[in-house]
Amino acid sequence: MTTLSIDAGRLLGRLHELGKIGRDGDGRLVRLAGSDADKAGRDALVAWIRAAGLEVAIDRIGNIFGIWGTADNADEASILLGSHIDTVIDAGIYDGCYGVLSGLEVIQTLKSAGFVPARPIAVAAFTNEEGVRYAPDMMGSLVHAGGLPVEEALATLGTDGTVLGAELERIGYAGSEEPGFLRPHAYVELHIEQGPVLEREGVPIGAVENLQGISWQRVTIEGEANHAGTTPMSMRRDAGHAAARVVTFLRDRARNANTPTVATVGCMSFEPNAINVIPSRATFTVDLRDPDEGRLQAEEAALAAYLAELAATEEVTISVERLARFEPVTFDRRIVELVEEAARRRGLASKRMTSGAGHDAQMIARIAPAAMIFVPSIGGISHNPRERTPDADLVAGANILLDVVSRLAAQ
Amino acid sequence: MTTLSIDAGRLLGRLHELGKIGRDGDGRLVRLAGSDADKAGRDALVAWIRAAGLEVAIDRIGNIFGIWGTADNADEASILLGSHIDTVIDAGIYDGCYGVLSGLEVIQTLKSAGFVPARPIAVAAFTNEEGVRYAPDMMGSLVHAGGLPVEEALATLGTDGTVLGAELERIGYAGSEEPGFLRPHAYVELHIEQGPVLEREGVPIGAVENLQGISWQRVTIEGEANHAGTTPMSMRRDAGHAAARVVTFLRDRARNANTPTVATVGCMSFEPNAINVIPSRATFTVDLRDPDEGRLQAEEAALAAYLAELAATEEVTISVERLARFEPVTFDRRIVELVEEAARRRGLASKRMTSGAGHDAQMIARIAPAAMIFVPSIGGISHNPRERTPDADLVAGANILLDVVSRLAAQ
Repeated sequence: MTTLSIDAGRLLGRLHELGKIGRDGDGRLVRLAGSDADKAGRDALVAWIRAAGLEVAIDRIGNIFGIWGTADNADEASILLGSHIDTVIDAGIYDGCYGVLSGLEVIQTLKSAGFVPARPIAVAAFTNEEGVRYAPDMMGSLVHAGGLPVEEALATLGTDGTVLGAELERIGYAGSEEPGFLRPHAYVELHIEQGPVLEREGVPIGAVENLQGISWQRVTIEGEANHAGTTPMSMRRDAGHAAARVVTFLRDRARNANTPTVATVGCMSFEPNAINVIPSRATFTVDLRDPDEGRLQAEEAALAAYLAELAATEEVTISVERLARFEPVTFDRRIVELVEEAARRRGLASKRMTSGAGHDAQMIARIAPAAMIFVPSIGGISHNPRERTPDADLVAGANILLDVVSRLAAQ
Repeated sequence: MTTLSIDAGRLLGRLHELGKIGRDGDGRLVRLAGSDADKAGRDALVAWIRAAGLEVAIDRIGNIFGIWGTADNADEASILLGSHIDTVIDAGIYDGCYGVLSGLEVIQTLKSAGFVPARPIAVAAFTNEEGVRYAPDMMGSLVHAGGLPVEEALATLGTDGTVLGAELERIGYAGSEEPGFLRPHAYVELHIEQGPVLEREGVPIGAVENLQGISWQRVTIEGEANHAGTTPMSMRRDAGHAAARVVTFLRDRARNANTPTVATVGCMSFEPNAINVIPSRATFTVDLRDPDEGRLQAEEAALAAYLAELAATEEVTISVERLARFEPVTFDRRIVELVEEAARRRGLASKRMTSGAGHDAQMIARIAPAAMIFVPSIGGISHNPRERTPDADLVAGANILLDVVSRLAAQ
């Protein structure tokens, strides 16, 4: 059993260095997939991988791999660690980068300690996890898992009119390896929680046992525009009011249910959007998440039933468009138990939890046993420059990853 | 007593011609105050006024006047007719335009019939009655009545960031007359009901004896943006959900009260307006109307109390900005009786009623005896392309206006 620990200074130094790369004119961190800023971040990562003496491999979708193999274990499937280094607009420095740099740190620590792995250990930085510039998100890991043909992914048109394949060529990261070339024996992703639970409960380590399913829908309600002063309340077909009913319905249902279900209406617009005109149309989005597929389907059905009832009582027309749908993912019980055991051995409290956000791990879980390790996010803040995790928690999380990998790579 | 009648073909022809002006790419009628479309409508009106041989005068807020005066009555206060020709977004062709064109039609009819008026007769098209682009609405008539300093009105910032004064300059309708230069002896405004009452009761003429009070407010709710997947329902400060609560509160209260109170939320916007982010800010408008000032104040107080309660329970910050506030208006009994008498003489049923909409007449009522004449709106539909009044009713209403004006201008 290893008593090794990672080099805290090296890990935190790289994290802050990478966080300086890709700042815009206003000092905001913006490393969108395929951009010049992304190239600068990738170049730094590749230099660190090389300096650690690992083999660098890049596949056709631009996923970067740092591989530590030996002559003895060359034929074995790899222990794969990883996450992503692309960011949202005005991002924090931890999301994704922490997992990639910790993976590299863990391999470098084992390597220099003379650890003898039974199989190769590799770290991956997957392309376009955030999906801000190119949809869908988690694209690089989805392609690696065979869930999206690489040609289709490369042809993706960006929000700015660019094509991902051309941008990867331009920045020099359209690699030659076929996606999926690296066969994972197991996958472990270390990540900040991006939620408030661990901090609130004072638990440093989250053993992530599953990941919420996501249902995204756009709802359009059509009523009748009419004069706000002369139309009696009883004669109105108010699309805006009907939309408000849906928002309160979703909130009350999720709030009162004793389940992890979360429901969010993030986008809303009224037409004609005039102060003295009853809205003729309201358009809004519904984001439903639940770790249980049956319950997620039940929530979708409850919404559909409510919309049908509302259409009748409010005399409005309602149409629904599905924008995205991912089933919940259950992670590998054995790896989750290794995370709990490692925390115990280091005297750290841990908690089994559900990931509320999407991660590359859910894609790799399609082809290999996978799990995640979470560390606390102060105030649950993420996708925001105020995203932060205390250094001690960052170091503890990386050491738990070290312990889990040394166990997985021992046989 | 005149037995004259207006030229139905001329009136209806101009009404349809004006209704063709200001159509957008989708064929929607959009003549917002100060826009290029507004300019096109104004140009057509001014040409018709000139063709009728009337004097054209434009004041600093852009109100257009067509004045028929004689050497003998030059010192007398005028009989003023009028309304507006600006529209909402995706409007019908009758709202406002019917009153302005009927006023012109009446003057033209009397003039060519050799009628000798004891005082000047003028028709006015008041600027920005709808208030869609610039608040408050009924702005031109408010300025004419001295209720708003012209400099303040000209400095109004539009929803699109434009300034009204600059837009009036740009379209060539920043006139030189001081607002209020034309002193009304009496004011009569002919308008479509914009409500369902006259049609439902089969009465062609409404003798409008009073007008609802109007309260416009903009409410801004500040919560906290956060990740839609990782933030438990119990830890959310969702500004969008709080806004939805206000919408349903207002609707339920007005719907269940046995009063003429109407409440409308016409504008709504969320920030950051992203599908997977809990709204940090929601901004919306509240339009409250009631013919009784005491009841209107009670409704405003009830909203304020609910907002205070909501701020506490939802942990959000709520600020309210007053956009406009008009007390209910009582019109001139003598003019209302002249309308009823004229209807009797023409064998038309009439009904005393309350205006649910705001009209320029309520502003001019501050400085002169004023009243309104309503004609039926099919289905009560207004502020909508399906707004319609049968031609026979349009012609009948204009003839009632003709009779009332000939009586008022006789002494």
